[in-house]
Amino acid sequence: MSEYSVVGKSVPRVDALDKVTGAAQYGADVHRPGMLYGKIVRSKHPHAYIRGIDTSEAEKLPGVRAIVTQADVKTGRSVFATDKVLYVGEPIAAVAATDPDIAEEAAELVKIDYEELPVVQDVLEAIKPSTPRLHNDDTKDGPARRVIKARLKKLSDDESQDHSAEIEELTAKFESLEDEVYYNISAETHTEAGDVEKGFAESDIVVEDTYVVPRVHQTYMEPHVSIAEADSSGKVTVWASTQGPFAIRSGVAGTLGIPLTQINVIPTTMGGGFGGRFGVALTHVPAVLLSQKTGRPVRVQMTREEEFVDGRPAPGCVIKLKTGATNDGRILARQALAFWDSGSVSGASIGSTIRVRGVYKIPNLKVDAYGVYTNKSGTTAYRAPGTPQVAYAGESQLDEIARKIGMDGVEFRLKNMREEGDQIPAGAKEPKVGYKETLKAVADAAGWWNREKGPNQGWGVAIGDWTNGCGPGGIYISVHEDGSVRIFHGSIDITGTDTAIAQIVAEVLTVPYEQVTITRGDTDSAPYATGSGGSVVTFTMGNTAKLAAEDTCQRILALAAERLNTSADNLELKDGKVSVLVQDPPRSISLGELAAYSLSTTGGPIVGKGSFARKPSTPALAAQIAKVEVDPETGNVRVLKMVSSQDVGFAINPMAVEGQIEGGTVQGYAWAMMEEMQYDEKGNVNPGFVDYRVPTSADLPTVQSVIVEVPAPNGPFGAKGVGEPPITPTLATMANAVVDAIGVRITELPIKPEKVIDALKQNGK
Amino acid sequence: MSEYSVVGKSVPRVDALDKVTGAAQYGADVHRPGMLYGKIVRSKHPHAYIRGIDTSEAEKLPGVRAIVTQADVKTGRSVFATDKVLYVGEPIAAVAATDPDIAEEAAELVKIDYEELPVVQDVLEAIKPSTPRLHNDDTKDGPARRVIKARLKKLSDDESQDHSAEIEELTAKFESLEDEVYYNISAETHTEAGDVEKGFAESDIVVEDTYVVPRVHQTYMEPHVSIAEADSSGKVTVWASTQGPFAIRSGVAGTLGIPLTQINVIPTTMGGGFGGRFGVALTHVPAVLLSQKTGRPVRVQMTREEEFVDGRPAPGCVIKLKTGATNDGRILARQALAFWDSGSVSGASIGSTIRVRGVYKIPNLKVDAYGVYTNKSGTTAYRAPGTPQVAYAGESQLDEIARKIGMDGVEFRLKNMREEGDQIPAGAKEPKVGYKETLKAVADAAGWWNREKGPNQGWGVAIGDWTNGCGPGGIYISVHEDGSVRIFHGSIDITGTDTAIAQIVAEVLTVPYEQVTITRGDTDSAPYATGSGGSVVTFTMGNTAKLAAEDTCQRILALAAERLNTSADNLELKDGKVSVLVQDPPRSISLGELAAYSLSTTGGPIVGKGSFARKPSTPALAAQIAKVEVDPETGNVRVLKMVSSQDVGFAINPMAVEGQIEGGTVQGYAWAMMEEMQYDEKGNVNPGFVDYRVPTSADLPTVQSVIVEVPAPNGPFGAKGVGEPPITPTLATMANAVVDAIGVRITELPIKPEKVIDALKQNGK
Repeated sequence: MSEYSVVGKSVPRVDALDKVTGAAQYGADVHRPGMLYGKIVRSKHPHAYIRGIDTSEAEKLPGVRAIVTQADVKTGRSVFATDKVLYVGEPIAAVAATDPDIAEEAAELVKIDYEELPVVQDVLEAIKPSTPRLHNDDTKDGPARRVIKARLKKLSDDESQDHSAEIEELTAKFESLEDEVYYNISAETHTEAGDVEKGFAESDIVVEDTYVVPRVHQTYMEPHVSIAEADSSGKVTVWASTQGPFAIRSGVAGTLGIPLTQINVIPTTMGGGFGGRFGVALTHVPAVLLSQKTGRPVRVQMTREEEFVDGRPAPGCVIKLKTGATNDGRILARQALAFWDSGSVSGASIGSTIRVRGVYKIPNLKVDAYGVYTNKSGTTAYRAPGTPQVAYAGESQLDEIARKIGMDGVEFRLKNMREEGDQIPAGAKEPKVGYKETLKAVADAAGWWNREKGPNQGWGVAIGDWTNGCGPGGIYISVHEDGSVRIFHGSIDITGTDTAIAQIVAEVLTVPYEQVTITRGDTDSAPYATGSGGSVVTFTMGNTAKLAAEDTCQRILALAAERLNTSADNLELKDGKVSVLVQDPPRSISLGELAAYSLSTTGGPIVGKGSFARKPSTPALAAQIAKVEVDPETGNVRVLKMVSSQDVGFAINPMAVEGQIEGGTVQGYAWAMMEEMQYDEKGNVNPGFVDYRVPTSADLPTVQSVIVEVPAPNGPFGAKGVGEPPITPTLATMANAVVDAIGVRITELPIKPEKVIDALKQNGK
Repeated sequence: MSEYSVVGKSVPRVDALDKVTGAAQYGADVHRPGMLYGKIVRSKHPHAYIRGIDTSEAEKLPGVRAIVTQADVKTGRSVFATDKVLYVGEPIAAVAATDPDIAEEAAELVKIDYEELPVVQDVLEAIKPSTPRLHNDDTKDGPARRVIKARLKKLSDDESQDHSAEIEELTAKFESLEDEVYYNISAETHTEAGDVEKGFAESDIVVEDTYVVPRVHQTYMEPHVSIAEADSSGKVTVWASTQGPFAIRSGVAGTLGIPLTQINVIPTTMGGGFGGRFGVALTHVPAVLLSQKTGRPVRVQMTREEEFVDGRPAPGCVIKLKTGATNDGRILARQALAFWDSGSVSGASIGSTIRVRGVYKIPNLKVDAYGVYTNKSGTTAYRAPGTPQVAYAGESQLDEIARKIGMDGVEFRLKNMREEGDQIPAGAKEPKVGYKETLKAVADAAGWWNREKGPNQGWGVAIGDWTNGCGPGGIYISVHEDGSVRIFHGSIDITGTDTAIAQIVAEVLTVPYEQVTITRGDTDSAPYATGSGGSVVTFTMGNTAKLAAEDTCQRILALAAERLNTSADNLELKDGKVSVLVQDPPRSISLGELAAYSLSTTGGPIVGKGSFARKPSTPALAAQIAKVEVDPETGNVRVLKMVSSQDVGFAINPMAVEGQIEGGTVQGYAWAMMEEMQYDEKGNVNPGFVDYRVPTSADLPTVQSVIVEVPAPNGPFGAKGVGEPPITPTLATMANAVVDAIGVRITELPIKPEKVIDALKQNGK
């Protein structure tokens, strides 16, 4: 029996009624009087010089009110392509018209004079010296040579002493070094711990593979949409469907040179984000520019096709991975060389390559990761950014090793898992996390230890971890005359976070959950709140809510002390009323009575505030086991069982946590088995749900969720982030299960039926 | 030179740009998708039984979506007339249709079967026994007899001892008493201090008059308007132009039985209120009922004509006033009997009759006031409710006495004014207020002491006081990464209060005024705030703002102490940055840098809150002197000079304070000289600005404002309420000036040219 009344309970979501009745207002529901419709003019070529932009025909079209290009961006910050386009769909201009059809027609009438260039699509091609450069980089040296070069410069700049001997030695090394040089590199990271060469030398077994993961799209239900309204005073209002209204405020402010106080971002109900709904470029900035130019409200809404050509999907990658272990199952060394497909701009997620270390002890580690420019749209975060890709490589390879040394996959992982106080490779000390508890829990729940399989069936296990974060947040609370409690804040509800906040406040103020309502403000009204991503919301805003409720509680007790003529020490808030502890006869006063009384005291209305930022959050682990059956005729893989466990610290709302686990697992399943952005030689992508396959309910396994609760020290009631972890193991889980069924590893996702058939053929079946 | 940087300065209003550019959103600017238009079905008779309501024809009209009557009000609270109407324009039903014209046509098609009753218009007629009663009251005894009756009941109920002697005596007194009985009384108050009979007996001179003041309308520019949207979950959103959104919330909630948390009131920019924009009945409740019935947003907006027939104007009154004084100018006694024209419902302002005591010592006082039912719409507050009417009577009569005893009007008033610690008749002790300072200031500024006048010219002086109040309020403050400061609150700006709040916060946080922005929330988001009326806002919200800024300041200093690695004691917030006091070299950090830093500390974003309620506020005085010239041919009165002084405690924004003084003086001038609601024998009023004359700029005097600053102890920076006082003396000021010019007192307002001509004829001119 829980010691709590509201937290830890599967209460219905605060937004349930609004969502099911259609009362929730999404971006497309915002209609402003006199609103115009914007349309982006997009590149039709993946790689070309722009020799001219002619808007004259488009301007003549009746109903067109404005066309903006980069010339309208007074700050000079890049919004539209000017001299060169780098992908099909890249924005070149934007049109505002009185009608969406007119806007679309006008966008077609903008004439772009292109001079086509060769297309760069494949990362392994892109890095070659012979490949054209997307950006004018002058890369000559590899990373090791660059390190030496920097050292040499330092030495020769230092005149305080004679470095000639060292300079000579380094120069010799520099010249002799056969350091591989990569081209079209957008970013790189290099991490080392221990000595991998030594580690591999000491290993009984070394496995080396190349894993290929495709770009996938977050496929949120609601396309990007923005309604901007610039008034004659220069004030700009943006209705934005976003994961982070404050990021949109500062992003639009910075891009267009508008003071923060002159921008108000009104968040609309968000139809899914998954990391893909933070940026300002896709619709917000163009909408603001068009509104500023026309003096009228402008809506810019992307079509599903535009989402695919100009959304910011998750990067694909090629990971060359090498792992060494002893025959008794100790991992000694791991080396990764990863090339991330960044698209046209400096890329997301390459920093996640370090996650190939997993939650294992691995004494020797070397990670080299590169973002690579290609003629595709830029990328961004997608649920546990970069981690599913890396975990797919890392956990696949562990599966290979376990098979080779004849050790149970769960036992092998348990043996290598870090425990509290262990050294994290290239990191700090491990805090207390339920790694082993989580893996054991999924094994127990799935029946792993006594697993059986029929023909064409296989079992797979994998784990994935996520280093939870924390952001800044503020929350206000008011208590009303009827005893109801109102929470006011500015963070975006991300699948239940508002509900968790309401539960926490109800718990602290000892009122029924139904009596607590929660209101989201815009950036003009709400205190700052961190963006809703990275599994930070329940941790951050939950802690903030707790502080705000405790502050409110103090005011309540002070007011009750005044009203009941006693000291606050002698009072207790319980069951929504304040009672005198030592008193005969017992006296009490309800929150509603106190709130009414508060309006006539010098202290004033009962309001509380909480402000919080960046306490260390605790990492989380998800572990999954799948049992699959492969149809050798069709290559179709059917999931017979899918069990997903997760250390959530404390489940504020178990139903919501299960929802997260199921959702993440399903997204991972889709990435493993069907989703893939496919670019043709003309740079065109599969731009809709006919060609880009997402699972339907008929495709999906039933996910059995197992909640593990190892309390997080700084978490509200011990809770930690739960959103990212469940997607992290699934790519590997599915891959490992398929190997177990067909005996061949498919190292390039997704595991489509045709690849299964090919693999079976290769395996002689 | 002021010790302050921002308060005390005439900075531009925070809403100036929005107002002049048209960006401010008034009720009529709110458009909701699918919105219907509501129209009230109104009584065409001033007094009649309703024998039937037939909506069948109206319902058949294409485009009509709903018709509501009292039957739709599940709480039973009175919204629409059912069996009887009491004035022309009384709501009987409301229609919602797809178009305003259809709604209007449908309202005409609702058939009401009336049985007409005699009309009661005049308060002195209404109180007679022979007059029909509007409500079924069984008044038999006068007030003195009712007091004896209550005492007799108490005595006979008390069985603890023998009261027979007293009972006998009282019974005899009861029977002998010729206590006048009044009928159609809606409310009454009776106040006594000292012994007026004795006072009059001791007086050298006793003057007795009857003063008649008409009903006037607040004539705010924006008619009442409400847009209500009830969603399928039962949640109701009301866009309301109102002085008190929280009052609208609780009012609608109470009337219709909706929980507070299920109503959100979004205040729109208010186009004037002056006390007349607090109620829920006129548009808000009908709009909500229609929206609930149709499931669609509904706008109910009154026409100017509806404002006159069903608005809630200021009550007219008849005041019989008697004052006794000595020949050397000491006021000894005053007695008032007032009948206030309440209209159809229990009336407003009768409690203000006590204000005939003014700010004078008057040792003997008796005040009897009645609200009287008539066949007119109900009344409500209008700037200093009831006080201009009463001050008109009181200050006119002092003028008469001064003339009769040959004493200067200013000297006479100064001689009788209360000072700090004096007994307020039927009240407490007088606090420190600049009564004499204010009157002297206006006399000096107007050149009273050396005044001259030509033929047909006259000078008038009068004063008026207002007992400032205070309400509850809450304010939140955020500091942003660019150093800007955001105030968030829920009180309605009433001609500059937002600006005062912003100035106070800027002053405390030592930032430039331009860096402070202020945002108003709806009732779902903002902390509770008192209604904007009764001159409470700058006092209440100003104090709240100061508390919030001080709370913010604490967080700033704590954060800076952490950042600069020193103690908060060693820090000073000045010029928008925090500096180390004792440090070599000097170090400092700006608010913007601190705000950015706050997002990464455990303390979190810089937010502050203030909560405040009901500290005693200090009364205020306005004094005015007018010089007029009467055209004996036309009876037209021209104002040659109008000087208006006021003790404002401290002028947070002198320009805004002058605006208040000018506005109030002009409204008083209009009431004195031209405004009047005229009801004909059919109960119809003059329903528009053709027949109801308000002054144009051509009619208006230039008002010279004189600000007197005697600091109010509890006021923010010494400020006190400034809105109500300036209207209070003007009716009397003008009347006294006209007497001085034509030698005859006109005791029935307004002083229209025809009355002046009549008076001149009466005076033999």
